[in-house]
Amino acid sequence: MTPQSPPLQRINTVLELRRVLDPVRLAGRTIGLVPTMGALHEGHLSLVRACRAECDVAVVSIYVNPSQFGPNEDLARYPRSLEADLAALADCGTDLAFVPTSEEVYPPGYSTWVEVGPVARPLEGECRPGHFRGVATIVLKLLNMVGPQIAYFGQKDFQQALVIRRLVEDLNVPVEIRVLPTVREADGLAMSSRNRYLSPEERGRAAVLFKSLRLAKDLIARGETNAAAIATKMREVILSANPARIDYAALVDPETLEPLQEVRRPTLAALAVVIGRTRLIDNCLLEPLAAG
Amino acid sequence: MTPQSPPLQRINTVLELRRVLDPVRLAGRTIGLVPTMGALHEGHLSLVRACRAECDVAVVSIYVNPSQFGPNEDLARYPRSLEADLAALADCGTDLAFVPTSEEVYPPGYSTWVEVGPVARPLEGECRPGHFRGVATIVLKLLNMVGPQIAYFGQKDFQQALVIRRLVEDLNVPVEIRVLPTVREADGLAMSSRNRYLSPEERGRAAVLFKSLRLAKDLIARGETNAAAIATKMREVILSANPARIDYAALVDPETLEPLQEVRRPTLAALAVVIGRTRLIDNCLLEPLAAG
Repeated sequence: MTPQSPPLQRINTVLELRRVLDPVRLAGRTIGLVPTMGALHEGHLSLVRACRAECDVAVVSIYVNPSQFGPNEDLARYPRSLEADLAALADCGTDLAFVPTSEEVYPPGYSTWVEVGPVARPLEGECRPGHFRGVATIVLKLLNMVGPQIAYFGQKDFQQALVIRRLVEDLNVPVEIRVLPTVREADGLAMSSRNRYLSPEERGRAAVLFKSLRLAKDLIARGETNAAAIATKMREVILSANPARIDYAALVDPETLEPLQEVRRPTLAALAVVIGRTRLIDNCLLEPLAAG
Repeated sequence: MTPQSPPLQRINTVLELRRVLDPVRLAGRTIGLVPTMGALHEGHLSLVRACRAECDVAVVSIYVNPSQFGPNEDLARYPRSLEADLAALADCGTDLAFVPTSEEVYPPGYSTWVEVGPVARPLEGECRPGHFRGVATIVLKLLNMVGPQIAYFGQKDFQQALVIRRLVEDLNVPVEIRVLPTVREADGLAMSSRNRYLSPEERGRAAVLFKSLRLAKDLIARGETNAAAIATKMREVILSANPARIDYAALVDPETLEPLQEVRRPTLAALAVVIGRTRLIDNCLLEPLAAG
């Protein structure tokens, strides 16, 4: 450990967080926040490194937020690996890990919720009712707890990033939102804490999400512009890997998430696929073939 | 104008607000906010004076927030008196009047709303569906725009203050909420911008709200503890002034706003009465008679 990297400080309460960060703010030093649910992987760590590079004080929150899980989702078995997470954060030069309890985040009598409109409704919003209400609320709370100048999110959760941008703009939260590229395994699988659920056999099949996104890119490069035709071929590839379910394989406007008929401007290809019992999401931006 | 009171600065945009207030914050000076809808009266000005006394920089916002008015309410005719308001604020030593347009507050595509739970449901929440959603959202926005250490509200809007306290606590907004006593006319009528709607004849009858609150106090002082009996007598007094409608005359728990059967602990008497076409609210805290 060099003199430039003081040890990671672990904080569990909002009061203590303010005690530590208020003087930082007053000194005019910048605070960056990477909100996570733990079970950290290289995707998270790429955000932490960007935060570390840009901000004077790098804060990472680790909190598995119950309010963004549906009643039949994986809250109870969501992977937890706090000691390993803290070690990885220390390695990245994180200054402060904020690890609140649920009693701290949602004390008795808690009753305030934030709802973001149209951009939260399709795709994940349709498959996971209440999910983005939980996400918007916890992210706003964490922003208020930490008071960062910059907060970092991954593009893998593309719709989440849109919801958070909308929330921050609409509620005038004084923070910049940075969305950084999805980090992938060698075979293209997007890094995700939920990849830990996959058996080795499922892990092999899970590469089909990326394969179908690459196919969409290839089709566009070869001149295909019909969104339905592209989506159909993406589904065919995914079905070849025998998924338990395809929640969606959609080509949508990357700002509104409304369905597109033709790929004539930048288009988001977005996927949610269940492999075995594990629900995986992924996406990529498709650029239309240049005219001429 | 003394050297201690620089002239009132009027600001219309969030960008300009941040440009002026960010250095104030960095210098460690405290900012106070009094959110208003204009049509200022002594109730507002008592808040401004408290803000002026406690904070280094006193900010007053003037914005008639459309989202807290129902479709059949008085948004269009709500009293506007900007020039007089600014003069009154300058007299009180206000540093900064924030007067945004609706385009600034709710730009195209706006779609985020804050909902506060049980405490927003009875009384005004029941009579004015959506009202507290609009209030919670605009107050959170103003807090984020201004970034005050302290924000000031009047006790006349008792339930509003409870909703805002809940919002601030639940969403971890780093601000203190001060609620100051209702300012009254000589005959007891609570000061309100809506009093301007009253004809001289209605203005006379409007004193009945305070009269009924005083009656409730007197009944308790004489040993009455039955909430229904007290509420019935309050209604009788109000009806004697021939109101167009009584929306409620209720004795409730001052923290949860749930109805109480007996006045055995501090109790809120809360009223909403329509005189002519003008809907007026008022309230007071009732202390139970000391035992023995």
